[in-house]
Amino acid sequence: MNHIELLKSLSKETPSKIIYFVMDGVGGLPTPESELTELEAANTPNLDKLAYNSSLGLSIPIFPGITPGSGPGHLAIFGYDPLEHQIGRGALSAAGVGFQQGDDDIAARINFCTIDSNGNVTDRRAGRIATDICDNLCKKISETVKLDGVKFFIQAEKEHRAMVVFRGKGLSDKLTDTDPQKTGVPPKAVKAMEPEADKAAAVINDFLAKVKETLKEEHPANMMLLRGFASKPVIPQFQDVYKLNPLAVAVYPMYKGLAHLVGMNVLQGLNNLDDQMDALRKHWNDYDFFFVHFKYTDSRGEDGDFAKKVQMIEEADKYIPQLLDLNPDCLIVTGDHSTPAVMKSHSWHGVPFLLFSQYARRDKSEAFNESTCAKGSLGNFEAKYALSLAMAHAMKLEKFGA
Amino acid sequence: MNHIELLKSLSKETPSKIIYFVMDGVGGLPTPESELTELEAANTPNLDKLAYNSSLGLSIPIFPGITPGSGPGHLAIFGYDPLEHQIGRGALSAAGVGFQQGDDDIAARINFCTIDSNGNVTDRRAGRIATDICDNLCKKISETVKLDGVKFFIQAEKEHRAMVVFRGKGLSDKLTDTDPQKTGVPPKAVKAMEPEADKAAAVINDFLAKVKETLKEEHPANMMLLRGFASKPVIPQFQDVYKLNPLAVAVYPMYKGLAHLVGMNVLQGLNNLDDQMDALRKHWNDYDFFFVHFKYTDSRGEDGDFAKKVQMIEEADKYIPQLLDLNPDCLIVTGDHSTPAVMKSHSWHGVPFLLFSQYARRDKSEAFNESTCAKGSLGNFEAKYALSLAMAHAMKLEKFGA
Repeated sequence: MNHIELLKSLSKETPSKIIYFVMDGVGGLPTPESELTELEAANTPNLDKLAYNSSLGLSIPIFPGITPGSGPGHLAIFGYDPLEHQIGRGALSAAGVGFQQGDDDIAARINFCTIDSNGNVTDRRAGRIATDICDNLCKKISETVKLDGVKFFIQAEKEHRAMVVFRGKGLSDKLTDTDPQKTGVPPKAVKAMEPEADKAAAVINDFLAKVKETLKEEHPANMMLLRGFASKPVIPQFQDVYKLNPLAVAVYPMYKGLAHLVGMNVLQGLNNLDDQMDALRKHWNDYDFFFVHFKYTDSRGEDGDFAKKVQMIEEADKYIPQLLDLNPDCLIVTGDHSTPAVMKSHSWHGVPFLLFSQYARRDKSEAFNESTCAKGSLGNFEAKYALSLAMAHAMKLEKFGA
Repeated sequence: MNHIELLKSLSKETPSKIIYFVMDGVGGLPTPESELTELEAANTPNLDKLAYNSSLGLSIPIFPGITPGSGPGHLAIFGYDPLEHQIGRGALSAAGVGFQQGDDDIAARINFCTIDSNGNVTDRRAGRIATDICDNLCKKISETVKLDGVKFFIQAEKEHRAMVVFRGKGLSDKLTDTDPQKTGVPPKAVKAMEPEADKAAAVINDFLAKVKETLKEEHPANMMLLRGFASKPVIPQFQDVYKLNPLAVAVYPMYKGLAHLVGMNVLQGLNNLDDQMDALRKHWNDYDFFFVHFKYTDSRGEDGDFAKKVQMIEEADKYIPQLLDLNPDCLIVTGDHSTPAVMKSHSWHGVPFLLFSQYARRDKSEAFNESTCAKGSLGNFEAKYALSLAMAHAMKLEKFGA
């Protein structure tokens, strides 16, 4: 019996409420000058006060040393083993633009590329075209290309990257990529890896021929490469496993997409924490699990802008009282991974984790940061246990065994 | 290779001795008023002094957030993965009354119930009859009902609950429950889930018909429901896996029963810690592992009586010098789970764990409680590793690999 099966057998519906406040990439590293991490440098009176009355720990997204992307990082804090539940590249692209993939949908990642007059790839990234150009190409393809009995949805991501979803009965995702992984050769044709995928291969090769025709006058992006064909990932749903009725209160498409994949209801049209707090208050009585996502701690970390990341942490801190005013039975404040500004990237470092509840042991820590969390009573733990901790503290789990 | 297989390959018989002093449900939570847990509020000079010279940690019975029953809680500290080795309801009932289930025995949980003149269940718990009435019913059935070629043992537990064991060659436990889980319908017949269980099903249906006849004049408990048919659980035995010769020095039937299931010799007739200490001294030379169980920390926690739980901790503390006088090579003081008085129930919180041995790192903690254990050098660890830690410190494990 794995941990998800156990949770399914023990979970019960209750009126109690859980808030996850995810400060993306919140964990950091000190600068050589200051010896303080972003959290340590930030002025966070609300989080610090909360830390005194909470249990702290460091959550390890995958296992020690492994840096997660946003997909596995979030799956883990949503209670899933991120090695067991992997999201295909195409499905992650769909999630990333907030596309809610259905059961008849196959998603793929697009890279616009350049081909020469012989049809050979000369640049697998089409000179990293600007996002607005990518957007225009997607619109053109969307308006021009028609497929027989299959719908498609195409949407720009960033620069030369986009995603496409093919919708039709009987489409299998057991398909090979078209990216040749080198220049001087033509894009590969899509091949079925099993007979059931013959239909999908034929449809997508037809699509690619029509795309080639549509883009023939464009430059440098006059063709596309497809990879990571993926049906909607089969992830046990929040309602089914945890008996939770969850609401995602996020701004960015990627996080709304990930929330959709695990079964959350996803609010649209929120632009900032003020909107998110309003939405929480408005929908407080209708749900029992609230995923509140704050992106900018990660963004400024990725930029390598230590001072701005500090500022974003301070910004997030201001909203803690509004979360507490809702009187949640359990409030978790954490990240999906660390993003130290000095690294300009996600990292493997343990993620500061705070759990506030009337049933939480109080660590009486003076602050919320990497050092206090490292000494916290929850210790270092696998992020996939964050949700069982939250459910336990909200009294949503039965006893195991007699 | 799982951890039990590894331990089996590394364990060796030595003259060194281990004591487990299990203070059931010892971990707690602060009251809102005092901010101190039961352990923090208790005056425990002996444990505190021992803590200074010991390694401390918090043991996690199952995984973060999961509250264990006594069965999985003890299996874990006895070194077993509690998710892998689950004890069926019937076997746990047998253990709970201290019945030592043999290889030809199938145990089941009894709930006495009320049926009407049509044979339909009107109360699945027979109005929660008093335990002495339950006891009388069990005796009446035991004296009256005779089965063909199969012996049975029936024993009251608490209120309407009892356990029954059927002993005979070729009895399979692949049987369905008779509890209809609702009223207004008759109890179900026992059904064989595989052909090998046909004999057992016939025997038990015959038993139930005779019980019905025997109880027809009783009220409100005029019938019984059976569930959780279970052969003796197959749990690797202490002698075989760990090469230990273990003795259980416990008062309550449940813990004697659990100790029996893992292969311990079980002393009978002990009534309190004085008896238990005498027994330890008397049998010190005959065994190398001693499981000393103290129930009342859990009992008073379950009662929600914070002050009494504190008192029970102080009571247990007085016996630490007697344990040390025996000069064990390794002494563990811990619980099988937490039972915070403020929750009046078992909980998922990490369990204070103390390991004393000449080979233990000294944490130099000033006290033995949740906070000091959270900061201890053993960190948060899965309870199933408690036994390998004990064996290591008693020099009972070979090196792994060269």
